[in-house]
Amino acid sequence: MEDSQPRALLPCPYPKLFPSQLNRDDQFFMQLAYNQAIDAWRADETPIGAVIEFNGEPIAHAFNRVDATKDPTAHAEMLAITKAANFIGDWRLNECRLYVTKEPCPMCAGASIMARLKEVVFAVPDPKMGYLGGVLEAHATPSLNHRLNVRSGILEDQCRELIQAYFRLKRVQSKNAHVPNAIDEDQLT
Amino acid sequence: MEDSQPRALLPCPYPKLFPSQLNRDDQFFMQLAYNQAIDAWRADETPIGAVIEFNGEPIAHAFNRVDATKDPTAHAEMLAITKAANFIGDWRLNECRLYVTKEPCPMCAGASIMARLKEVVFAVPDPKMGYLGGVLEAHATPSLNHRLNVRSGILEDQCRELIQAYFRLKRVQSKNAHVPNAIDEDQLT
Repeated sequence: MEDSQPRALLPCPYPKLFPSQLNRDDQFFMQLAYNQAIDAWRADETPIGAVIEFNGEPIAHAFNRVDATKDPTAHAEMLAITKAANFIGDWRLNECRLYVTKEPCPMCAGASIMARLKEVVFAVPDPKMGYLGGVLEAHATPSLNHRLNVRSGILEDQCRELIQAYFRLKRVQSKNAHVPNAIDEDQLT
Repeated sequence: MEDSQPRALLPCPYPKLFPSQLNRDDQFFMQLAYNQAIDAWRADETPIGAVIEFNGEPIAHAFNRVDATKDPTAHAEMLAITKAANFIGDWRLNECRLYVTKEPCPMCAGASIMARLKEVVFAVPDPKMGYLGGVLEAHATPSLNHRLNVRSGILEDQCRELIQAYFRLKRVQSKNAHVPNAIDEDQLT
């Protein structure tokens, strides 16, 4: 069941950002997450990136690696949560904040709750698959034992442009190469 | 932030099951998942186990490893999904069926959807944190691009007894040892 179709690499036309280390605000951390999304594109993965902040420091960086690993759980948020837990030395991440360039899917929203993250900040809402407000507010489930704060809209336009450009170019590439099913936009979520 | 409190091992009083290899039915696969839950207990983890079936064969076995790994994503279902994807060689598990001894939490329900599992069969419902019918039907979200079938109740009494006995004994143990917060029942989900 291996996908025998080789995936042509699509050069990323967007440069990385260089935020000032002096301002450890939402913009700073989301720009680091954006840079992770650039790394995802460079690795021929859907450009979604995540960073976890703890005590004003980025303790975990990750990008989507579903295609490389062929693992449906290898979303940027999941990998960042695992890295942060490893850094903290505890599965409870109560003092940590997740920055991610797109609203988390059902799995990643659930993981944010189970990891007891203090807050999730995402850039681009996902009205189809987003589980932190887009299609459903998982964090508002009354019986949950953890209150997760959610904010959005930081660096939204830039992160949206990156994702949309990736799929636009992928579509053109697939059409030219007559590669059926080379794009799986569902994986975006 | 390391938990310096050593966790005393609590011997599991329940034996493993030996289902016939000739009947590859729900009972067979759930009994294998139950055996994984026994392994979890023996490793001093919340006794939840999972098995993934493909073409009538168990292709992935896993049990909860949150405590050992200190990773909030290390639920039995997540580890089984990663193993199954590795076996299949694709992140899409459309022909696979997940058996798990307790209703999946928000993260694992989401992962079942994202992995495009054909079906999830669970033993014990979870009215507090279950996201496949207990507190919420994640698989019924209309905008999802995948239809996940869900069934429950297989080996329910036996799997419930195992989980309840574990927490009952843990409570007694903690009380006797005067160990504060040694039990975290929330992690059950």
